[in-house]
Formats: sequence, structure tokens, C-alpha cells
Amino acid sequence: MLCFLIGLIVSLLGFFNNLAIENIAGTKFVITSDMMLARKYIAAFLVFASLNLGLTLFASLITALIAPEAAGSGIPEVKAYLNGVDAPAIFSLRTLFVKIVGSISAISASLNIGKAGPMVHTGACIAAIMGEGGSKKYGLTWKWLQVFKNDQDRRDLVTCGSAAGITAAFRAPVGGVLFALEEMASWWRSTLLWRAYFTTAVVAIILRALIDVCLRGKCGLFGKGGLIMYDVTSANISYHLRDVPPVLVLGVIGGILGSIYNFLLNKVLRLFNFINEKGIFYKIILACCISIFTSCLLFGLPWLASCRSCPSDTSEPCPTIGRSGNYKKFQCPPGHYNDLASLFFNTNDDAIKNLFSKDTDSEFHHLSMLIFFVTCFVLSIFSYGIVAPAGLFVPVIVTGAAYGRFVGMIIGSHSNLNQGLFAVLGSAALLGGSMRTTVSLCVIILELTNNLLLLPLIMLVLLISKTVADAFNGNIYDLIMKSKGFPYLETHAEPYMRQLTVCDVVTGPLQIFHGIEKVGNIVHVLKTTGHNGFPVVDEPPLSESPVLFGLILRAHLITLLKKKAFLRTPVPIGPDAFLQFSSNDFAKKGLGNGDKIEDIKLSNEEMEMFIDLHPFTNATPYTVVETMSLAKALILFREVGLRHLLVVPKVSGHIPVVGILTRHDFMPEHILNLNPSLTRGRWKRLRFRFPRLGRLIREL
Amino acid sequence: MLCFLIGLIVSLLGFFNNLAIENIAGTKFVITSDMMLARKYIAAFLVFASLNLGLTLFASLITALIAPEAAGSGIPEVKAYLNGVDAPAIFSLRTLFVKIVGSISAISASLNIGKAGPMVHTGACIAAIMGEGGSKKYGLTWKWLQVFKNDQDRRDLVTCGSAAGITAAFRAPVGGVLFALEEMASWWRSTLLWRAYFTTAVVAIILRALIDVCLRGKCGLFGKGGLIMYDVTSANISYHLRDVPPVLVLGVIGGILGSIYNFLLNKVLRLFNFINEKGIFYKIILACCISIFTSCLLFGLPWLASCRSCPSDTSEPCPTIGRSGNYKKFQCPPGHYNDLASLFFNTNDDAIKNLFSKDTDSEFHHLSMLIFFVTCFVLSIFSYGIVAPAGLFVPVIVTGAAYGRFVGMIIGSHSNLNQGLFAVLGSAALLGGSMRTTVSLCVIILELTNNLLLLPLIMLVLLISKTVADAFNGNIYDLIMKSKGFPYLETHAEPYMRQLTVCDVVTGPLQIFHGIEKVGNIVHVLKTTGHNGFPVVDEPPLSESPVLFGLILRAHLITLLKKKAFLRTPVPIGPDAFLQFSSNDFAKKGLGNGDKIEDIKLSNEEMEMFIDLHPFTNATPYTVVETMSLAKALILFREVGLRHLLVVPKVSGHIPVVGILTRHDFMPEHILNLNPSLTRGRWKRLRFRFPRLGRLIREL
Repeated sequence: MLCFLIGLIVSLLGFFNNLAIENIAGTKFVITSDMMLARKYIAAFLVFASLNLGLTLFASLITALIAPEAAGSGIPEVKAYLNGVDAPAIFSLRTLFVKIVGSISAISASLNIGKAGPMVHTGACIAAIMGEGGSKKYGLTWKWLQVFKNDQDRRDLVTCGSAAGITAAFRAPVGGVLFALEEMASWWRSTLLWRAYFTTAVVAIILRALIDVCLRGKCGLFGKGGLIMYDVTSANISYHLRDVPPVLVLGVIGGILGSIYNFLLNKVLRLFNFINEKGIFYKIILACCISIFTSCLLFGLPWLASCRSCPSDTSEPCPTIGRSGNYKKFQCPPGHYNDLASLFFNTNDDAIKNLFSKDTDSEFHHLSMLIFFVTCFVLSIFSYGIVAPAGLFVPVIVTGAAYGRFVGMIIGSHSNLNQGLFAVLGSAALLGGSMRTTVSLCVIILELTNNLLLLPLIMLVLLISKTVADAFNGNIYDLIMKSKGFPYLETHAEPYMRQLTVCDVVTGPLQIFHGIEKVGNIVHVLKTTGHNGFPVVDEPPLSESPVLFGLILRAHLITLLKKKAFLRTPVPIGPDAFLQFSSNDFAKKGLGNGDKIEDIKLSNEEMEMFIDLHPFTNATPYTVVETMSLAKALILFREVGLRHLLVVPKVSGHIPVVGILTRHDFMPEHILNLNPSLTRGRWKRLRFRFPRLGRLIREL
Repeated sequence: MLCFLIGLIVSLLGFFNNLAIENIAGTKFVITSDMMLARKYIAAFLVFASLNLGLTLFASLITALIAPEAAGSGIPEVKAYLNGVDAPAIFSLRTLFVKIVGSISAISASLNIGKAGPMVHTGACIAAIMGEGGSKKYGLTWKWLQVFKNDQDRRDLVTCGSAAGITAAFRAPVGGVLFALEEMASWWRSTLLWRAYFTTAVVAIILRALIDVCLRGKCGLFGKGGLIMYDVTSANISYHLRDVPPVLVLGVIGGILGSIYNFLLNKVLRLFNFINEKGIFYKIILACCISIFTSCLLFGLPWLASCRSCPSDTSEPCPTIGRSGNYKKFQCPPGHYNDLASLFFNTNDDAIKNLFSKDTDSEFHHLSMLIFFVTCFVLSIFSYGIVAPAGLFVPVIVTGAAYGRFVGMIIGSHSNLNQGLFAVLGSAALLGGSMRTTVSLCVIILELTNNLLLLPLIMLVLLISKTVADAFNGNIYDLIMKSKGFPYLETHAEPYMRQLTVCDVVTGPLQIFHGIEKVGNIVHVLKTTGHNGFPVVDEPPLSESPVLFGLILRAHLITLLKKKAFLRTPVPIGPDAFLQFSSNDFAKKGLGNGDKIEDIKLSNEEMEMFIDLHPFTNATPYTVVETMSLAKALILFREVGLRHLLVVPKVSGHIPVVGILTRHDFMPEHILNLNPSLTRGRWKRLRFRFPRLGRLIREL
């Protein structure tokens, strides 16, 4: 039911998104083209550049001022959330609003950014907000949704939401489910697959119905450009063994380009972060610079291309005047078109459609294609880091398509495959090289191009480019996550973790509460430490020897302090302890909505009183013995999805708990800090990579 | 690398399989048809029936005598294995051989069984055997494969192998990966997805190349029938909102039929099991009866249909003489064809192709279709249980296609959709109703029919039929697994498990070893119990108080006894204990290849000696505290993939371990046996289902 609602909202939003982008960008291009027709070239440029600048300014202003969390793709944030990292405010209503509006205006501004990432974040946001039962801040809450107020259900919903996001962006329901599974989710269950599938099915069916409405021409410019669905070719394509070597080369170079892309993007992001940290003003200046730079390139570069005469046997009008289409007139005389303008002077969706189209082998000059490829590559690297919602998927597809088509042109008649097909394979290669997912990308590309016969070739290209790129660096989203500092927990344990025991990484003085604890102590500990979980130990008056009773959470302690359920004397209370609490008090709070210890005011008298923690403690926390290897503890921590793991001593002596492990204790940086001798071992692993790299270079 | 080899072998086997079936079955049909042409009807029947009987007899004889494990689909066994249940000999070379040969001959015998299940088992077998480094029994071992001798790697390989199996059966690489993920695998990691994808890509590419070779007509009858790939329609199909209600109805009825199918199949299997238990002779008689019954129906029923005159505008020869094709002559005069014979008197693949084909709305009479549907439904239920390799996928597809086409005929001109499309949707509905997977089925059907535009409709049908069928009973494979008694561990905990603690289910006297134990004791305990893991406890002479040292496995104890690494006095040995062992001694043994305690002969003197178990014990087993709820322990057990879970007391008193939990302790039957009071709670769950059932019946 909830999945249905999520699907409904996401599909409507996705449709609205596309409609808005197509119409805003379309209007912009129509105005500019009209002025070009009247030969007012300078005025056209000024209008084009200032419209772009205005839209960019708007997008970056609302992002910087209202919700800085909405900047960028959002996929790394959602992925980190699904791994268990709660970044603040990533799923608030503010973020959702900025993400939608900002994404529309930034893409309409002809920046080389995509809509897939923002759509995923939008879908995840909607799911999370609905999972929380609406936003309490804005008074929009539903009672019946409160049942989903726990970690697991909310995480499932967010997974479904992000699957719906991909589906809405690419109209690829199966691809959406797979992407959510392969790239986003850290835990997976069979029922989750079914729910995600249900959500994307709803999105697919609704989108299909809406497009039917649009095809009757009621959606302005939308009917033409539309949700991406490039019918590459419906005829039977045939390929033989001799077409395989070019495809292999395409895959290898695609993988190398992809890893270079990741490397450069990471470097540029670091540079931009450095600028962005200086303040909001600098952020916006940066965005404006990128916008002006983009406008100059888009408007300036087509002048380099020579005019080409229109083919006589085309079904489209040539040159296309005023609307989006394959043949842009730009500065050319009648009967001629400018091939670079056909690519640059269009929305990204239309550019992809042009590049993927078959039977257009002679439409583009190979120099134009090279210019387009280099420009896209550079622009997409520089555009991502600005303070506006920006995806990575579509720019990589455009760049890859240009690359593939360029390779296709060089190979020319040596291959049976037509150049549109090479463009598809080039996109696949570059995507594989930068995103590193395989099955989901394969299905997304298939659903985009609607041609199942391509399957073996696409699989081959993806496998090769992923394998090649993996030899150099990591997945683009992981790199971004790392640079953002999210403590992402990997599934596999690093080899050196096998040699360490959990004792080696437990740090800091352990804060322990007694079964019946003084209020003052609790307040003091909560104020002076940032821990979220505390072991509770029963000592001799209550038991024979010190015994670990359980684990209590900071949030629950704060609830207890707020309710002031204090005792005057340290005696245990009975089972009626819960009478003054409702189950909602202990429910998981929304992200960033928890109470703070500083907000609770207690009198000195109250500080001297006691709380019986027993009824509120998780009496059966998961524990590991202190001699267990870190790798083994990591498996438990990761697979069961824990936040706190208690370490107990081998021989129960005077102290029943040795320490507490959290996510941060498993981070490689933390471990290597504590055990500097391991750094050499780490280098050994890196050295192992260099021969592979050397071998690859020699192969080229 | 290994995945590549698996892919290679599976694809070659899959190809060979298809080739053999097509040629054997094709030759049989050609011989029979030739006799029919000469009007020798009775002789034709006798030849047909005896050929079928002979093939069935061969298949059931080799299955019953050589490898009874190869009977049936194999998917439940593989699924159970991936969940952690080691059924004996399911992956032996014998089983592999019988599975391949038996499946070929049983399918060629015109029994209504499929090849997908056996292919999955074959793929899994190959993967498992390669993972074990070959079969030791037959002297085929590879040294370098030994590194994969551990549970996790082998399980990953088996998952890849089963994905390859589906791919080889349906030429559906993405569908294969998804099926392995959704239906088979119990644990899932991102890298596993990639490996499975790699394997299926290899299969898809090799199959594609082999088919290219075959299309040049060098493979006998194979070129015609071939690996299933039904190009339903390459034209753009369009459907509107008014086509949705019939599709909904199709889905609902499909779901109901699917659950009835599961119910009946389960009942028939119980009956057959009862017969099969009586001995090999009864098994074979049963298989022969089914074969004769099938032959009678296949040969007899077409006589009921009236001859139809050939359409004038067909591209195929009509009536088809001697070969497989759409228009079978059977007993009809020249220029006429028998529509029922076109379905019955063909391999299943060709029947599906006929049913799925478009522009054949008038080819079949609706009465013929009804007869075909009912016959297939009955035959597929009765054929599965015989003692021969038999899949479920293809029969369900055929039955569903007949059902869909019948519904399409009834609706007739009220819908824009053509009847071939209805057949596809009918197959989807019945598959969804019996297999209950969604994403993978959707992709498999898409890849079979090669038409992505069907996607929204297929998604809709699958969702509805799965939802409807889930209200009645479970997934067909789960039902079969249950009736075979595999202790399959579900992901989710039953509600009543929350109210139980682990203490409530721990049973039996606990067998504990001391750190330094007498040989005689070990032998006695190993001989008298069937446990596979034993806690090791250090008692006062060695430590201050009784301390849980760890967990030792039966297999390791047997290795120790075999090597006779005994001590004369109970003193600890140092780190040189490992000197007399190679790492291979403690590697995971192949299924059923472990040594038995009965095989080890020890003298009385040796019985009085001691073993220091410390160096050979897993010193950091996972433990839970005795008050932990069973549901929480189940999550740990299931997610981390344990075989033994030690239960420790809350307060460490005189005994440091309370019990040991194994897979069987988490089985609902076991728990309900121990706690009969819960049975009422279980009924409450069932009662909850009846209103839903009632509502559904009223809706019809």
C-alpha cells in the first residue's frame, strides 16, 4: 500500500520533472534560435548566456540557502544511509523541495548534469518522509504511518524509493530494482526485492499511461523529447565474430576513460570543496562561473564546425528551425545544418537520441564528434561539484555515446555495426568504467534502447570496462562517499583484520552505568561523551559478582530524563515502570529530530535521585569475546546490521565488559591509526596493483 | 577464471542437451508422421508409444539405479544447499551424469516435463564439482582448485552455476542472474552478483556463437526448434486502458490456477512418494504407467478435433509433413490440418512457439485449446513425480500459454491485444502463481519473447497473480522442499519466536569436552551422538574457574583421531602441535566424503591416552546469552550463516555453557513440539487467512 503511494508520487514527480525541463529548456532554445534566424548572433548569445546564468543562479541560491544537503547527486548519501550512516537532514522536506526545483532549473540551464541522481534522492526522500509518517515540523503527520517507525522498515522503504527514482528517470523498472539492489542496498531480503519491484511496476505503468496522454500532443514540447526511450533499431541487427575485436577495444578504452573520469572528478571535487568551504558567496560565484563557461562553450564551439548540406532522403525537416531535432540550422545558410550545434544546442536527452540514432552514419563529421566528446568530458567533470542538485548518469551517457560514435567512425566500414550501435556500446563502456555496476547498467541500457538483441554485446563491453577500471580505482559513488567522510562499512574484511583481535581496536575509557544509577552521573556522562550506547552492569549489592546486564541507548536515557521517572532511593522498581510511557516515546526518532541532553533542565535535588535502568535496557545485546578476530566481529556487525557490539572478556573476572565497538572502530583509517605497523602491509597490497597496471599499459 | 570455465561447460552442455532432445524427439515424430501418412495409424501409435516407453524406461532405470538424487527438478535441492543444508550426494559426478542423460531421454519421451530445472541442477553440479577441485573418487582432481575448498566460495560457485543453468535453458542471461538471486540464494553479496553476471555473460555469448553456427543448418533438426527464443512480434504493439481489465482478470485467475497447481502437485507428490518408497520396481512401473498414459493422450486426443482447412496466406507449408511446424497433418486429408495435433504432436518448445505466435488468431479452435490446457495441466502434475530428472518451468509455461490463449479467444474482439500476446501473459500469470518470483520471471519472459514493450503488462500480471496466489499457499519449490524434509531456514522469524528465549528450545543432554580430553571419551561421544560440534571447556586444574574455551567440530576430531596425535599425560602441547598436519587435513571435505568414526580403529592403550584439543578448537565461537529471544538469535544464526551457536549463561556460575543451537532447533516443527501451547497461536495465523480467501471467492 505504502509502496503504491510512493510509486504514484515518484512517477508523478518524475513526469512533472521531465515536463518542466523540456518546456523550460525548449522555450530557451526556441527563443535563441529565433534570434539566430534573424542573424542577431550577439544578442542571441547574450540571451542564451543570461538565461542559463539566471537559472543556475536560482538553483544554486536555493540550494545554498535552504538546503545545502541537496547539492550533488544524492546517490552517495542514500547509499550511506542504507549502510547505516545517518547523515543529518538528507531526507527532510526542505531537501526534497530544493532537490526537485533545483534539479529542474539546473538542468534547464544547459549545465552538463543529469537528472537520475536527483530523482533517486527524490524517491528516497519521499519514501523516508512517508516512512516517518510525514514531517512533524510542518504539521503533516499521519497516524497510521507511524507503524513504520523503525530502522528496518524505513530502510526498506528508502530502497524502494530509490528504485522508483531510477525508474522514473529512465523508464526502466527492472533496471531500477537492480540498481537499488546492486549499488544502493547493503542488506537484501527476498521480500524487499518484491516490494521494490512492486513500486517500480507502479511507476512504469503510470508513466506509460501519462506518456500515452502526452503523445496526443498536449504537453508542449514534451511529446518530442520525452522520457528517454531511444529505439535504436527495430530491425534485426546481426553481428559476427569479426565485430568482436572492435567491441573489445571499445570496452578496454572505455574502462580506462572511466577510471580517469573518476580520478579527475575526485580531484576536482576536492578543489571545489576547498572553494565551497570559504562561504556561500564563493559557492555561488563558482556556480555562476561554470554556467558562463558552459554557455561560452555551447555557443562558441559550433562555429568551428563547417556547415553540411542536408541529406535529401530524411524524414525530418532539415534544417530544423525553432524546435529540437537532428538538424540544427545555427549560422548556416538554408539547406545546410551545423552538426556540432545539433549536439550542443539541445537538451542532453535529445543529444543522446541523436547520437544513438541509426542510419545517420554520415550526419556527423568525425572532428565534430571529437570536439563534442572532449567538451562533454571536461564539462561533466567541472559541473558536478557546483552547489546544485546534479546527477552523473546522463553526462556519462552523453560522453560515452560521443566516444563510442567516434570510435565507430574511425573503424568505419571495417565493421558491420552501425554508428548508433557503437554509441550505445560506448555509453555502456564509460558507464561500466565509472559506475562499476554490471547487471543493473546492462538492464537499464537495454530498457533505454529497447533492443534485446544487443544483450550479449552490452554484457561483453560492461564486463571488460568494469574489469579494466577496477584495476585502477574504485566506484565513483564510493569515491564521493569517501571524500565526504561517511563511515561506509564494506562487506568484506580487509586481510589485516584477520590478524587483529577486537581488543586491539577498542579505545578510550569505557563509560559504564550501574543497574540503578544516579541521575547526576547520567547527565554528566551524556554531556561529556558523544557515545550513543552504554553498557549497564549490575554490581555486588544487586548480584553476587559484577554481571553485564545489557546495553542502553542515549536516546532512551534522554527520554527517561525528560519524563523525570526518578526514584528517591536506589531500589529496583517493578514491571509497572512502563506505565508512564507510551510505546511512541521509545520509537526511533526521525533523522535529526531527537532531543538533546542540553535541552533538559534538572534541579539539584533531582540530580541526586536515582533511575532504575533495568526495564529500559536491552538485556540481550550481541556480544563477542575479546579474543575474536576483527574480521569475524566485522561479519557479525555488518551482517546483522548492528550499531553497538559489546566486547566481553574471555575469563569473567572483576569486570564483565571490556569495551564497545561501533561503526567507526571498523574503519580502516581508525585501525591503521591504532596499529601503524600495519601500514606497511597496506602498501604491500598497493604494490600488488602496480604490475597489473604496468601490464595493462603495455597491452595498449 | 573458474566462473569462465563453469560458463563454458554449462553452455556447451546446454547446447548439447538441446541438440540431443531436438534430434531424438524430432526423429521420433518424423517416423510416426511418415507412418501416419501411409495411413498405418495403429502401427504409428504402437511405434510412438513404445519409443516413448523405451526412453522413459531408460531415464527412470538410470535414475533409480545409479543416482536417485537426480530425480525431479533439482532446484529445491540446490536452494536448500545454498541455505546451508547439505543433502548427501546431490553434487556428485554420478548425479551429474544421470541428470544430463536422464533429462535428455525423459524429455525426448514426450513426457510433459521441462529442462530448466535439470539444467539448473547440472550447472550447480558442475560448479560444485569444480569447486571441490574435481571428484576424488574418480581420480580427477586439480591442485589449483583446492583453494576454493571452503563453504562460502563453494556456495558462491553453486549460485553462479545455477544462474548459468537458467541462462543455458532459456538463453536469458539477466533472467538467470535474477533467478539465482531471488529464488535460490540465501545470502547475497555485491561481488557475487558480479560473478554470476560474468558466468551468464559467458554462457550467453557462447550460445549465441553456437546458434550462429547452427543457423547455417548443420545441426539436424535443431536449427528449427532451437533454444527457445520466441520473437512474439517485432512490430510496435499498442495497448490502451481498456485492455487492462482483461489482463487483470487473467492475472487473478492465473494466480488461483497457480495455487491450485501447487496444491495438487504437492498432493500427487505425497502419493507418489508413498508408491516410490515401496521399492525400485514400483518406481519404474509408475514411470512406465505415466509414459503410456501420456502417449495415449497425445495420440488419442487429436482425433477429437475436426480437420481445418489450411489458410491460404501462410508462409509455412501447410500441412507440414514430416517436420515440426505450425500445421500438423495427422489424420486429415491434404490441404487440411489438425490443430490439436499441432500442439500435442510436437516438442514442448515448438508448442510454446505455436501458442506465442502472432497473427494466428484463427489457427486454433477454442475447444481444442481448452482440451490442450486441461491435458497439459493434468499431465504436468502427474509427470513431475516420476523417478527421472524433470523440470517444472516449461510445463507451466505451456499450460499457461494455453490458458492465456483460451482466455484471449473468449474475449476475442473485445480487446486490441492479439492472442499470441494473451498466451504470453497467460504463461506469466501461471508462472507467477506457482513459482512466486517476480523480477526474475519478468525478465526471463522478456528475454524469451524479445519484446520490451510488453514490460508493463507482464509486470502487472505477475504482481496480481503472485499476490492472489500468496493468499492460498507457498511457493512450489518451498512446498517440495518441505515435503522432502529439508530444514530450510527462513529469513524472517515467526511472531511466536519473539516470546521464546533460546533457553526454551535448547534440548538434550549437552556433550562437553575438556581442554585436554581422554581419547576413549571422545570416541565414545562421537559414536553415541550425531552432533557435529562440541563445546570445549577448561576446568579448574587448567583455569581458575570453568571457562568456555571454544567449539570443536566433529570432522576435526576425527582428523585428530586418525592422525593419532595423542599424549601420554594430560599436559598442554605447545604451538608445534600443527607440525604433523597439513592445512588440507582441516579443509572442508566434499559432500559425503568425510571419514566416519566407525572406520577408525584404536587400540585399548591408545584409548587411555589424551588429546590436547586447544590448538584445534575455534576459540572464538559466536555466542548468545541464554535470555536472548529466539527471534534475535535466529537473525544472528541466519545472517552470519552459522552451523552452531553456543548459548552461555547470563551469570557465569559453575557451568560456562548452557547449550548449543543448530539449524534444527530453529525449525518451527521442533519449536512447536517443545511448546505445544504455541500451536493455538499458530492457528490464529491461519484463521487470519480465511477471510482473505473468502473475500477472493466472493470477488469471482
